[in-house]
Amino acid sequence: MECRFKDQPRDEKELRNLKSRIHRIIGQLNGIEKMLDDNRYCGDVLVQISAVESALQSVGYIVLKDHLETCVRDKAKADDPEVMTEVMELIKKLK
Amino acid sequence: MECRFKDQPRDEKELRNLKSRIHRIIGQLNGIEKMLDDNRYCGDVLVQISAVESALQSVGYIVLKDHLETCVRDKAKADDPEVMTEVMELIKKLK
Amino acid sequence: MECRFKDQPRDEKELRNLKSRIHRIIGQLNGIEKMLDDNRYCGDVLVQISAVESALQSVGYIVLKDHLETCVRDKAKADDPEVMTEVMELIKKLK
Amino acid sequence: MECRFKDQPRDEKELRNLKSRIHRIIGQLNGIEKMLDDNRYCGDVLVQISAVESALQSVGYIVLKDHLETCVRDKAKADDPEVMTEVMELIKKLK
Repeated sequence: MECRFKDQPRDEKELRNLKSRIHRIIGQLNGIEKMLDDNRYCGDVLVQISAVESALQSVGYIVLKDHLETCVRDKAKADDPEVMTEVMELIKKLK
Repeated sequence: MECRFKDQPRDEKELRNLKSRIHRIIGQLNGIEKMLDDNRYCGDVLVQISAVESALQSVGYIVLKDHLETCVRDKAKADDPEVMTEVMELIKKLK
Repeated sequence: MECRFKDQPRDEKELRNLKSRIHRIIGQLNGIEKMLDDNRYCGDVLVQISAVESALQSVGYIVLKDHLETCVRDKAKADDPEVMTEVMELIKKLK
Repeated sequence: MECRFKDQPRDEKELRNLKSRIHRIIGQLNGIEKMLDDNRYCGDVLVQISAVESALQSVGYIVLKDHLETCVRDKAKADDPEVMTEVMELIKKLK
């Protein structure tokens, strides 16, 4: 699949925010691995997994909002007939 | 919160499976971070995020199934009145 | 598909609760149809649809909890090897 | 809350489609009520509930797609600063 890029670079502050959220999620995942190694109670492991699910969902929402505010807005203004179909496909994929 | 542990150790094969899935998810997250650094198109980033969401959901389901087959089954057989309430709470948390 | 029945009848109070929730959901759906007929703003229609989704999810959770507390508990005590696999399949189907 | 309306009437064919889907969902809900009255097995009731959840989600997606293609597109072209924030709020509400 050919690599596609944003027309404009992401806002620096938002990029740092997304990167630090991803680092935190990776930290949480390492914590879950340790819980599994320590044979921790399943219920407690599942609570941590659901916390990571929520954190990941937040990352998705930030990227989606930025997408709507930049690419989608520009394409709508340029009367791109496909842009909203793509938005729906993304919405259906995300949890 | 006091640390709770499983009564029996997790099956070795399942533990390896869970750990390798977590490592793969971490790899995917590192890939997403690189996409953000490279200013890759939001739609493509979102597709990767939804892939990680599905991979994480699978990890949750594996842990939940193991929980049902071990802790929950044992507690049900011991007529623990609270076990199914706990299962519902976990189900509601997980995406 | 051959009709299957619960071993014990549902609790009367819970049955009334489930039935009144279903009636309310049907009322909400009739309301949504009227909003569509009145060409009401999509955002307001979508808010009502999400309210029905939540109400429907609650009905599912009540039935699932009752299932866990009765059929699943009994089958676990009878060492039914398939019961938890069925529970997982139901969990994966429900939103 | 003050009643808001779409700027343009919904497409007739789509309106009929949405109304028939809602009628079908109401029929399914009546079927679920009968299953509860007949003390049908919880697992079978839950399968029907998940079918209604999917049908309802489809209705939401149709309304959301129409919203994106009409109201949102028009507001984006009019440089409405709030439109994408509203879209995100709707996405977060829908299952």
